[in-house]
Amino acid sequence: MGEFDLIQRFFKSQSRPSADVVPVGIGDDCAVINPTPGMQWLVSSDMLVEGRHFLSTVAPQRLGHKALAVNLSDLAACGATPRAFTLALSLPRADEVFLAGFAQGLFDLAQRHGIALVGGDTTQGPLNICITVMGEVPRGQALLRSGAKVGDDIYVSGTTLGDARLALEVFRGTAQLAGADFETVRRAMECPQPRVELGLALRGLARSAIDVSDGLLGDLGHILKASGVGACLNADALPRSAVLAAQDLALQHECGLAGGDDYELVFSAPSDEAGRAAVAAAAAASGTPVQRIGRIEAKPGLRLVDGADQPLLTQFSSFDHFK
Amino acid sequence: MGEFDLIQRFFKSQSRPSADVVPVGIGDDCAVINPTPGMQWLVSSDMLVEGRHFLSTVAPQRLGHKALAVNLSDLAACGATPRAFTLALSLPRADEVFLAGFAQGLFDLAQRHGIALVGGDTTQGPLNICITVMGEVPRGQALLRSGAKVGDDIYVSGTTLGDARLALEVFRGTAQLAGADFETVRRAMECPQPRVELGLALRGLARSAIDVSDGLLGDLGHILKASGVGACLNADALPRSAVLAAQDLALQHECGLAGGDDYELVFSAPSDEAGRAAVAAAAAASGTPVQRIGRIEAKPGLRLVDGADQPLLTQFSSFDHFK
Repeated sequence: MGEFDLIQRFFKSQSRPSADVVPVGIGDDCAVINPTPGMQWLVSSDMLVEGRHFLSTVAPQRLGHKALAVNLSDLAACGATPRAFTLALSLPRADEVFLAGFAQGLFDLAQRHGIALVGGDTTQGPLNICITVMGEVPRGQALLRSGAKVGDDIYVSGTTLGDARLALEVFRGTAQLAGADFETVRRAMECPQPRVELGLALRGLARSAIDVSDGLLGDLGHILKASGVGACLNADALPRSAVLAAQDLALQHECGLAGGDDYELVFSAPSDEAGRAAVAAAAAASGTPVQRIGRIEAKPGLRLVDGADQPLLTQFSSFDHFK
Repeated sequence: MGEFDLIQRFFKSQSRPSADVVPVGIGDDCAVINPTPGMQWLVSSDMLVEGRHFLSTVAPQRLGHKALAVNLSDLAACGATPRAFTLALSLPRADEVFLAGFAQGLFDLAQRHGIALVGGDTTQGPLNICITVMGEVPRGQALLRSGAKVGDDIYVSGTTLGDARLALEVFRGTAQLAGADFETVRRAMECPQPRVELGLALRGLARSAIDVSDGLLGDLGHILKASGVGACLNADALPRSAVLAAQDLALQHECGLAGGDDYELVFSAPSDEAGRAAVAAAAAASGTPVQRIGRIEAKPGLRLVDGADQPLLTQFSSFDHFK
């Protein structure tokens, strides 16, 4: 199977962009896209490397899902409507079983979010997946890291924050779980669900947002730095799954606060009655649970307290690829 | 040096997009871009892997240049104005000498073409460079592979077609060159110049275009297939440098016809007097030499002749990453 056969068989044949939005898709030097008048164009690239972002044990279908999911999560964090993506893929060899599974996971998720594969590249080399996603927001309505205001409530989406990290600890041999529990948290790690609908529902409402890829504390830290504010976080308020809640408290904190790979949204919004009601309505409309976990404060830095408002002395670092 | 320091020091500090075009650049979940009203948006991704697209001996500055150049070449082939790009980079380690050189080559070329780095990703892993470029054309004016018409002249740009392949043959030990000659062809391989200005000048004039990345015959073949036509090519009319012209004829043909890594434009245009004058004017206006090398024909397939119109029996295959 040659490069062009591979592209045709596994990717071009399953890419059916709307001709209105993508008049020229896969198969020319560039894709041609019609931006919607009045909208801004949002772009993000993520690269996934074996051993860093996924383990060699992951099923190809889940890998295809995750590669697009982590990119869609960046669009979600900005409140953008997904439009198009490119895929650059380096593979040791043209393995048909791998490619068929990878493409299925990729396109199942793409179709669910109405986003079309419009181009890319394939080459031989160490396994590496680079996706660039593009989306749109009405002018000036992108959710950014820089808009948090003192007094804002801080929220996190979902009910399984930290499960991905717990799964990683099991793979590393530093935690043990029964088979069914392991499957549950492994799914969180390998099949994250990007919070696209929630991001859309938070447009014009959330004042700042980011997705949790490197760990809650580190990612919230980016909001604080970009907004020039501080925060107080109630560690006991973090949502956690039944599996994580059954672990000892230190591991719960490690996974929930510094885990990473969650792809939930952390965001801030006005704390008045109307603000809280609007967030609850956005969560309900998007079918995404959200949990209030803290407050934006003027004093720089991030303070952790427990449910009784007592300081927690912890030292968690966010994930850094070069530390 | 951590991941965020690395991004700040080598990339964000040198990325100065115009706030009109890129209101939000590096440092949020997505970049936010304002498309120009009435323009279509063009997108292309290329991934470069060590040993496949470059040798470990390449200077970091040249690698930074080439990684962006091969992407700009795709925009050039479509006649697009470069606007923005993302860079995803997997590195074995945060090597400051490598990063400083790489960034210099990258940003020198970016500034020459007015294109801004707007985001990306860095991670640890085998060396891999994935760039996604974005550009614009007025609606309906993108140069495509599919527009060639029977009777069109076929042109190729530049004067050094095949030099990159000759350099590769020297690296492989299958050809020998004196030091200065080797430096000349090595520069062609490592520092290709994307034909952005020529692509812009050919808008509304060329009927089809592609850039030569995998070899002239193979890339022209993509035009023929997409346009449903054939072609006759005069191998003796191919432009060639003094260094290549001094090699034996078989090597000249191998390098010029099937070499690849040239990043010249191959395009077709009307063969009447007005068409030829317009191509000559576009070449002059963009400061890019072009050479007429053949003709689009109705009969499918690609026929090679010499300067005396005698058939050349050659069997060249284009580069395929999985064959």
